[in-house]
This record gives sequence, C-alpha cells and structure tokens, in this order.
Amino acid sequence: MRLALLQCQPTRTPSGALTRLEDAAREAAAGGADLMMTPEMFLTGYTVGRDALDPLEAAPDEGLWAEAAAIARAHLPILTTGPLPGHGNGAVLFDADGEIRTQYRKAHLYGDVDAAQFTQGDRLSEVFDFAGLRCALAICFDIEFPELARTLARRGAELLLVPTANMHPYTGVATRLVPARAQENGLAIAYANYTGPDGTFDYCGLSCIVGPDGADLARAGDAAGLVIADITRDDVTRVRADLDYLSQTRTELYT
Amino acid sequence: MRLALLQCQPTRTPSGALTRLEDAAREAAAGGADLMMTPEMFLTGYTVGRDALDPLEAAPDEGLWAEAAAIARAHLPILTTGPLPGHGNGAVLFDADGEIRTQYRKAHLYGDVDAAQFTQGDRLSEVFDFAGLRCALAICFDIEFPELARTLARRGAELLLVPTANMHPYTGVATRLVPARAQENGLAIAYANYTGPDGTFDYCGLSCIVGPDGADLARAGDAAGLVIADITRDDVTRVRADLDYLSQTRTELYT
Repeated sequence: MRLALLQCQPTRTPSGALTRLEDAAREAAAGGADLMMTPEMFLTGYTVGRDALDPLEAAPDEGLWAEAAAIARAHLPILTTGPLPGHGNGAVLFDADGEIRTQYRKAHLYGDVDAAQFTQGDRLSEVFDFAGLRCALAICFDIEFPELARTLARRGAELLLVPTANMHPYTGVATRLVPARAQENGLAIAYANYTGPDGTFDYCGLSCIVGPDGADLARAGDAAGLVIADITRDDVTRVRADLDYLSQTRTELYT
Repeated sequence: MRLALLQCQPTRTPSGALTRLEDAAREAAAGGADLMMTPEMFLTGYTVGRDALDPLEAAPDEGLWAEAAAIARAHLPILTTGPLPGHGNGAVLFDADGEIRTQYRKAHLYGDVDAAQFTQGDRLSEVFDFAGLRCALAICFDIEFPELARTLARRGAELLLVPTANMHPYTGVATRLVPARAQENGLAIAYANYTGPDGTFDYCGLSCIVGPDGADLARAGDAAGLVIADITRDDVTRVRADLDYLSQTRTELYT
C-alpha cells in the first residue's frame, strides 16, 4: 500500500478544507497513492467550537462527508475527519467508489478542547482489509494509550491509520509514543498532523509513517505537504518473525 | 534521589565483576548517589551458559550476593544482578546496611539466550519505598511490554529500575521504548546497560535515566562509565498534574 498523509496548516472553513482536500487528492493520486489521509477534524477545523460544529454534524453519507466522498470517487480512497452525529469526533474512510469503507469515533477525549466539543466513542475501530493489509483507525489521543494499539493488534491490525491534531509542546507523542506503539506491536502506523497555529494551539507537524520495527519510513518536519511511504504485509511478517511481542505477553501477571 | 548507573563492558568473571562493582560504588558514593545499579546478570556475566551459572546460583544473602552486600554496606545502596536459586535471572537491592530491600526475577524471557539459562519469574516486582520515591524493578525484556510498566504504575510506582543487556540492532528499545514507558505512565525509568561485545552479543550502551515526561535526564553513548541524574517525587507529580494517562484509560474497551 502506498500511503499519502496530508500535513497542512489548520483549515478553518469547510470550503477551504474541501478545496485543499481535492488539491491534495489530485497530487496523491498522481503519485500513485492507494490512500490519502488528513489530520483530525479536517473538514471543519478542530478548535472551532460546538456552536460552529452543530450545523455541520452529518451522517457519513451526508453533508461535508458526501463532498469528501465525491473527491475520493474522482481521485483515490480518502480517510478524512469531521463531526459525526451525536457530537462524535469522527473519521470516515471512503473507497475508490466513494463508498464508506469504515467509520470511527474518537474514544479517548483530550482535555478541555475535546470535552467542550465532543462525546467519546464507545468502541474501538473495526479491523478491516484495505489494499493488502489489515487496518484499523484511531484518532489523536487514542494512540497515546498502549492498551488501544495492543487490543487492535490482537484483533489482527497490521496498520493503524491515525489522524491527529498534536500540538506543542507534546512533540514526544509524534516522535516517541507513535514509533513505540509500532515497535511494541509489530505493526505500521500512519500519523497525519497539522502544522502551525490555529489561534488555540500551535500544531507541531512531524506527521509520520512508521514501520513495524518502529523506524520512520517517512517523517515531515514543520512544512506543509504530502508525506508518502509504502507499507506491505511482508514488512509486518518479517518484523514479527524476528520478534513477536504479541505471543510473549504474560497476561496473568498484569492484574 | 540521585541515581548512578554503571554502564560497562561485559564482565565475564565474578572476581572481575566484584572489583568493578566496588570501584564504581566508591565513585558513585563520592558523587553523592543514593543508589547505584548495574546491568543484567552483572555478577556472573549474562551469556556464560547454564553450566557456569549452576555453581554460582545463591540465595540473595549468600555467595556473590553477600559480597555485593558488603560493598553496599561499605559505600552506598546497590541494585545488582545475578543468578538466583531455581535458575532465576535475578536482581537484588541492598540498602546502606547491606540488607536486602527487595528481590526480583525476570518475568519475560528473551529468546534462546534466556530459554537456555533461566526459568521465568512468576510475579512482578513489589512496589517499595526508597529514597523518597515508590520504586519497582524490571529486567531487560520485561520493560518492552507496556502491560508490565502500566501494572506497576497502577500499583503506585514512580520510578522503575531496569538492569538490562540490550544488544545491537535493538537500540530502539533504549531510545524509544524505554522513554515511551516513562511518558505513557508519568514515571521515571533508569535503564543500565552493557557496552561492547561479550562474544555472543554486541551491547549497545545507551544507558539512560528518563524523566516522567519521557525526556532523557541523562544518557550514555557507547562509553563505559557512570550515568548520573536526580529524580524526585515532585518531578512525577508535576508531569501527572499536566497530563495523567492513568486516570484516562478506558479499560472496558480493551477486551
């Protein structure tokens, strides 16, 4: 699978987001990507407030989501993010036909910014087949909890797709925790972030695609642009053949 | 607490280990350390084989352990490592009186080298008070499993003391997994490693004392010597006041 992450400045309007999404989708498709993904709450902006989000909440086949689906249909599969009904901080993956492949709601809410805007999801992502890998989703703060990645790995995940809005001074999430999650589970992780200020936060960039040994396959600095790398099931199989943490846990001791 | 880690070339004889232990203890005590710790299986060497270990196995108040206790009594508290009865890969902490403060057996055995020499421990470390912090032990491969550090953190640990024998090419354990364990639990970790070859492995050094935000407080390269840093309960309290992962897990989702 060739993955393209869109690292960008925060987009504060839906129209700006959709324009940017289509420009990036065109570029990612031209580069041969099988999937493009955006940062968290991309279609509306992340810190726009509950009042701004209310009229934009929509089921994943309606509203802004339907416009994103049309871009996917025109260019390539897209994982993007925005408000789902019931105050969900959502992610939806649209396939090459613009059909919904999976959807997910952020399960671990981060601080006041999430508490004021969102209701937590009540289940983890499904694990699903996409472009030759078993995939699952997480959003931002979710990936900081080792239990979540471990649970998804045990359910078969080989690649975690993680839209985020990670801000200074928490660069260690992007550079340390995300690679650790990959290494300790022998799976790949794609982590797509904003860069620069949105009035509330100063996002740290550092979007990355990390291999199942924890090493960066591609890593942004603070510049906007696409981050591209290839991941295959063979990469995962090779790392787990060398060292398979999943088979060596001692669950009876962790009480 | 001022911690001193002994990073050293592998010592392959008990007499060499005891000489090195006393030299390092003298230096650590002169530097004001409250505790000095060594790499894994320090008193005998790690890859010496079962036949060499058999006559050296001893209860923690006997044999080589008693000689280490005498060095502690003469200089400062010491956490060191060696063979415990029943083929344990052990760690024992001796206080300033040379009394046994706690003992632990490695619970996660690493590969053929451990399978051929050791029997796994059947419980995690106790969590105990030492020099103003709630402390617990782990040995080498143990720390690579997020469940172990999480369990000890939930039992109150603020500092994990981890003797290790971490070899190339697994430098990511020292530079990525150990700091991640610290950050994701808001606790400090001390990780004391060998450097250089022992005929079986080429150890990677990189011994470290990592703060509860995951940042290095002190980090060795590949040179032998003491690695020293100070850790206090206030450091832990400050980090957890900013972001307390332990209170935000969603255990019901990790099934």
